[in-house]
Amino acid sequence: MDIKEIKVMKKILNINDRIAEELRISLKDKGIFYINLMSSPGSGKTTIIEETAKKFGKKIFVIEGDIQTTLDAERIAKLGIRTYQINTGPFGGDCHLESGWVKSAIEEIDLEGIDILFVENIGNLVCPAEFDVGAHINTVVLSVTEGEDKPLKYPLAFRNSQLCIISKTDLLPYLDISIDKIKENIKNVNPQMEVIELSAKTGDGFEDWVEYLKKNKK
Amino acid sequence: MDIKEIKVMKKILNINDRIAEELRISLKDKGIFYINLMSSPGSGKTTIIEETAKKFGKKIFVIEGDIQTTLDAERIAKLGIRTYQINTGPFGGDCHLESGWVKSAIEEIDLEGIDILFVENIGNLVCPAEFDVGAHINTVVLSVTEGEDKPLKYPLAFRNSQLCIISKTDLLPYLDISIDKIKENIKNVNPQMEVIELSAKTGDGFEDWVEYLKKNKK
Repeated sequence: MDIKEIKVMKKILNINDRIAEELRISLKDKGIFYINLMSSPGSGKTTIIEETAKKFGKKIFVIEGDIQTTLDAERIAKLGIRTYQINTGPFGGDCHLESGWVKSAIEEIDLEGIDILFVENIGNLVCPAEFDVGAHINTVVLSVTEGEDKPLKYPLAFRNSQLCIISKTDLLPYLDISIDKIKENIKNVNPQMEVIELSAKTGDGFEDWVEYLKKNKK
Repeated sequence: MDIKEIKVMKKILNINDRIAEELRISLKDKGIFYINLMSSPGSGKTTIIEETAKKFGKKIFVIEGDIQTTLDAERIAKLGIRTYQINTGPFGGDCHLESGWVKSAIEEIDLEGIDILFVENIGNLVCPAEFDVGAHINTVVLSVTEGEDKPLKYPLAFRNSQLCIISKTDLLPYLDISIDKIKENIKNVNPQMEVIELSAKTGDGFEDWVEYLKKNKK
């Protein structure tokens, strides 16, 4: 890689960061709380959004990021929630979302009456953390089935986020996993990170998440 | 992105593919069966290698790919199995391994007496599938906890692999997941893909994996 290339890359990153900052300010001005959900594939992001939608109804808008398929968007739309699909497949199957794509989506969306905007990022614990999409809160969803060591192994996602949702806690009795160890590893990587433990299936802990949203969307 | 950049990228990919092909041939000539394990974070790759090591002992060598930490390599080394850690953190936290890095690792390794070489790729169901590391068999490890739709949502990993290990089957009684649906989705994306279902925890189905290795390492 020669110097010319590095310069180009920096330029792309700067544009991404600039658009991200614009999005952050403009959505705050509109009174919309904007949350970016990042995680490994299958951590339960879509299920959490589904259950959240049942509490907040049409005050939610969801931008779905996927490489292929509209499966997650279809799940959300079935609940009567408005949703917009970004598929990165046509652009080479990109492994993350960028602020420019979110901006383009938002330009096509009627945000009237929306209190909370979710971006469900591509299922990937590595690359999405490298690209600011302009959210007010970056959230990592970590399923208890993924093991205790993930904050240590994928530190950037945890460092660049303000909240960790530890999901699928209903499975804890069947795993050799200590939730205290997970939380200890989170604190080692990001001492300021807030943590909410929940099971979207049983509803355990879900009220904490609803309270968090109510508190922040003001 | 201008034309010059695209040219550079193609050149990099060509070099990666050429080194991959050299690795594939040279390890075959040495009688070593080379397997690349790819998956989401926390699907159980390291646990599968640990249990495999208990069956094959010192005939196994493991190259561990991680962004940060040597946690997985330490788990393997504890069993007396030789292992080599590639950390991509110092190179910008790369989200995948490349053939050149595996080649550099192999040049430092004494492969005398080794029958099976595992590469445990970075935990990421997107990017590793884009880079041929020269393995004889690419394997996707998919935990039942990740849901039924993952082959459809991350098709490249499934298309570029020959084997899928469906892991953590001991958790099936506690999930609303149909393993037949997972297999149907795998077949839709890659009709030729072999599938092994196992639980490294209970040992259920593990014998099929051991047989698969014995058959292929000849």
